[in-house]
Amino acid sequence: MKATDEYIIPAPELRSEMSLRLGRVAEAMNESGMDAMLIATNANLYYAAGMMYRGYVYLTREGRVVYFVIRPTEVRHEENVVEIRKPEMIPGELGRLGIAPASTIGLELDVQSYSEIERLKKVFSDASVMNASPLLRICRQVKTQYEIGQMKEDGRHHVAVYRKIQRLYRRDMTDVEFQIAIEHELRNEGSLGFLRVAGQLMEINLGSVIAGNNADAPGPYDFAMGGAGVSPALPCGACGEIMRVGETVMVDVNGCFNGYQTDMTRVWSLGEPSPLALRAHECSRRILRSLEQMGRPGVEVAELYRRAEAIVAEEGLQSYFMGHRQHAPFIGHGVGIELNETPPVTGRSRELLKENMTLALEPKFVIPGTGAVGVENTYVVRTDGLENITPFDEELQNLL
Amino acid sequence: MKATDEYIIPAPELRSEMSLRLGRVAEAMNESGMDAMLIATNANLYYAAGMMYRGYVYLTREGRVVYFVIRPTEVRHEENVVEIRKPEMIPGELGRLGIAPASTIGLELDVQSYSEIERLKKVFSDASVMNASPLLRICRQVKTQYEIGQMKEDGRHHVAVYRKIQRLYRRDMTDVEFQIAIEHELRNEGSLGFLRVAGQLMEINLGSVIAGNNADAPGPYDFAMGGAGVSPALPCGACGEIMRVGETVMVDVNGCFNGYQTDMTRVWSLGEPSPLALRAHECSRRILRSLEQMGRPGVEVAELYRRAEAIVAEEGLQSYFMGHRQHAPFIGHGVGIELNETPPVTGRSRELLKENMTLALEPKFVIPGTGAVGVENTYVVRTDGLENITPFDEELQNLL
Repeated sequence: MKATDEYIIPAPELRSEMSLRLGRVAEAMNESGMDAMLIATNANLYYAAGMMYRGYVYLTREGRVVYFVIRPTEVRHEENVVEIRKPEMIPGELGRLGIAPASTIGLELDVQSYSEIERLKKVFSDASVMNASPLLRICRQVKTQYEIGQMKEDGRHHVAVYRKIQRLYRRDMTDVEFQIAIEHELRNEGSLGFLRVAGQLMEINLGSVIAGNNADAPGPYDFAMGGAGVSPALPCGACGEIMRVGETVMVDVNGCFNGYQTDMTRVWSLGEPSPLALRAHECSRRILRSLEQMGRPGVEVAELYRRAEAIVAEEGLQSYFMGHRQHAPFIGHGVGIELNETPPVTGRSRELLKENMTLALEPKFVIPGTGAVGVENTYVVRTDGLENITPFDEELQNLL
Repeated sequence: MKATDEYIIPAPELRSEMSLRLGRVAEAMNESGMDAMLIATNANLYYAAGMMYRGYVYLTREGRVVYFVIRPTEVRHEENVVEIRKPEMIPGELGRLGIAPASTIGLELDVQSYSEIERLKKVFSDASVMNASPLLRICRQVKTQYEIGQMKEDGRHHVAVYRKIQRLYRRDMTDVEFQIAIEHELRNEGSLGFLRVAGQLMEINLGSVIAGNNADAPGPYDFAMGGAGVSPALPCGACGEIMRVGETVMVDVNGCFNGYQTDMTRVWSLGEPSPLALRAHECSRRILRSLEQMGRPGVEVAELYRRAEAIVAEEGLQSYFMGHRQHAPFIGHGVGIELNETPPVTGRSRELLKENMTLALEPKFVIPGTGAVGVENTYVVRTDGLENITPFDEELQNLL
C-alpha cells in the first residue's frame, strides 16, 4: 500500500472476488432464513471487504452490499460506501439507499461483546436477531481460488524461512534465542509480525519453539502443544532454557505474510534422537501420508481423527499422542484468515470434508525426557486427496 | 517459569498482592451492590490471579475468592482452586464450598461475547446480571506498588532498547527494515513478542515506526497515529518505503517485558528537520512539561487535554495536532496490563486523576512533507505531579 493512497473499499482488483464470497454468504443466508447480516469484527471484515477498516459490512439475502465506514475518515465515496459516525446511523442510510428493513438480521453473537450486540439489537429493534457467526465460519471453511492462491503464497514464504532454520542454531543457545532468530527471519521474509487467532482466550506471539521437557509443561491455551513460556503473562512455548544434546526442538511458527496463514511444524534434534522419539516422529509422518490419501470431499472429519488414533494404537504410542501430561483433543483445524479456524479435527466432529477446504493437520507426540516430535502441514482438500501447501523435508534434522 | 513447574494459582509470592487487588475490587462491588463477580477474560484474569489460565475467578463482595480452572488440567489442589470442565459446574462447586448463591452477579459484558454471556446467564439463572467491565476497568486504573514496580521494570527495558535505536539505522533502509531491527532488540531485551490491547477491533504487532508522509496515511485503528502498513490485512505503521533525508521517523514500539507495559515514543530525523517540525516537536515537549506539573490527584483528566490544546493554539499548530488528514481525539490513555487502558485523555472525559494511576501522554503532530513529531512517556500520578517512568533523551535525534 502506498503511504498516500486513499481508502477504496473494496480494492478495485478484489471486487469480483468479494462478489463471489458475498454471493456464497448470501446463499447460506437464504438457506437459513436470514434477511440481512451485519459484519463487524476483524477477521470477518477482512473476508467480506478484503481489507481492514472500522465499520460494518451490511449484506442482504439478495446479495446487496453496503460498506459502512467509521474509520478511516477519508474513504472514496461510492454508492455503496457510506461514512457513518456510529451504528445508530445505519437504518437511516439503508432507507436512503432504498433497502427495506430486515425482518431477521444476523449478528456475530460468538465474537462481538454482549454490550455491543445489545446496542445493535436496539439499532435493529424491529428485526429478530440470528447468530451469524456459525454461518460465516462455515462459509470461510471453503476457500476461493484467490484465497488458495494467497495461502500458497504464504506457504512459500513459510517454507523459505524453515529452509533457513538449520543454519540459525548456535551452540548453547536457549530455546528463546532460537525462537528470536527464527522470528527475525520470518519478519525479513515479509511476515506482518502479527497472527490473527480466533477466540477471546487465545494469545500467541509468532508461534512456539519447544525443546526437551518443556513440551510436557501443560499450558492454558488450546494449542496442540503447551510449553511453559518465559512469563506467567504468556505461558506458552519457549521457556528460556538452554537446549541440550538428546532433546528435540519443535518449531511451530507462523508468518501471516499476506493476511492469510499456513500452519507448519518441523522438528530438529540435538544429536541423535532416542529410538522412541524417532519412532513416534515416523508415526506422525505415516499418519499424514494416510490422511493425505483418504482426505477427500465427503469424508467425515471425525474419520481423519479416528484413522490417526488407529495408527497410533497400532504403534502402541497412545500415551504420548497429542501430549503426555496434558492431551489436546484434536489433531488439526481449519486455517486461513485466522490461524485456528473450523472445523477442529476431533473424534466428535460431525462435519464432512468439502472441496477447497483448508486444514492444518498436526499429529504430534510428547516423549518424556526427549521432547515433542511430529509434523504439521497445511492442506487443501482436493477431489483426489489432500494437497500439501507447506512442502518441506519432514525428517528429524540434526542441529549439531 | 521452569519447564516442569506445576501450576500453582496464584503464585505463592503473589498471594498478598492478589488479596490487595481483590480486596479493592470487593470494595467497589459493595459500593455498586454487586454480590459476586465472575472474571473470565485474559487481561482481567491476569489482574486477578497474577497469571494466565483458562477458567474463572469467582469473587464475592465479602472478598472470598475461588479459582475455577479448566485448563491446564494439572493444577495444585487447594481449598479455593477447583478444577472444572465447563462453567455449568460452578454453582454446584460453590455450594460444596458453602458459598451462598449471589442475587446479583457481575459479568464482563463489554469483553465477553454475547453467546458466552448468554451461557453464563443460564448458569446463574437466579441472579440478576450486572456489568463488571466498567468496575474492573476503574479498579485497574490505580496501580498497586507491585504493579508500579512491574511497570518501572518494563520501562527500564523499554528505555534500554530505545538507547540502541540510533545505532540500528543503515543508509537506504526502509521503515519496515528499521522496525524489524528495533523489534529484534526488543526481543533480545526480553520482550514477550506480544502486546495485549483492549478492544475487539484493535490489532498491532510490536508497535509502529512511521516515516515521512506515511504519518499522514489515515488508519482504521484507534491509535494516536496511523500509517498505511504493508498490507491491507494490517493497515498500520511502517509501509515499506525507503526513509529519505528531510523526513522524521517516529518510533512508538512496546515490549511487554513482564505482562505490564509502558508506552513510549521518540522521533529521529534524517538530516536537519524542517523548522516547523522542530517547533512542533518542542511544543510537544512543552506540553509534557506542563502536564507533568499539573497532573496530580483530583485534577480533571479533561483539564490535561484542554491544557494541551491551549498550548497548541498559542503556537498556532492546531492543524497538525494529533494528525493532519485524520485527527485522533485524545492525547493519552491509561496503560498497564493492556496497552490502551482507561481513562482516555480527551476533552470529554469526566474522570479525575487518582494517586498511582498510570497514564501514557502522547501529544503528537503530523507535518505534511516531513512526518510525525512529538514525545510519549508513561507516567505515574503522584501527589506532587507526574513521575516519568520512561525517561530518555527527548530531542529530535539525527540518524545521519
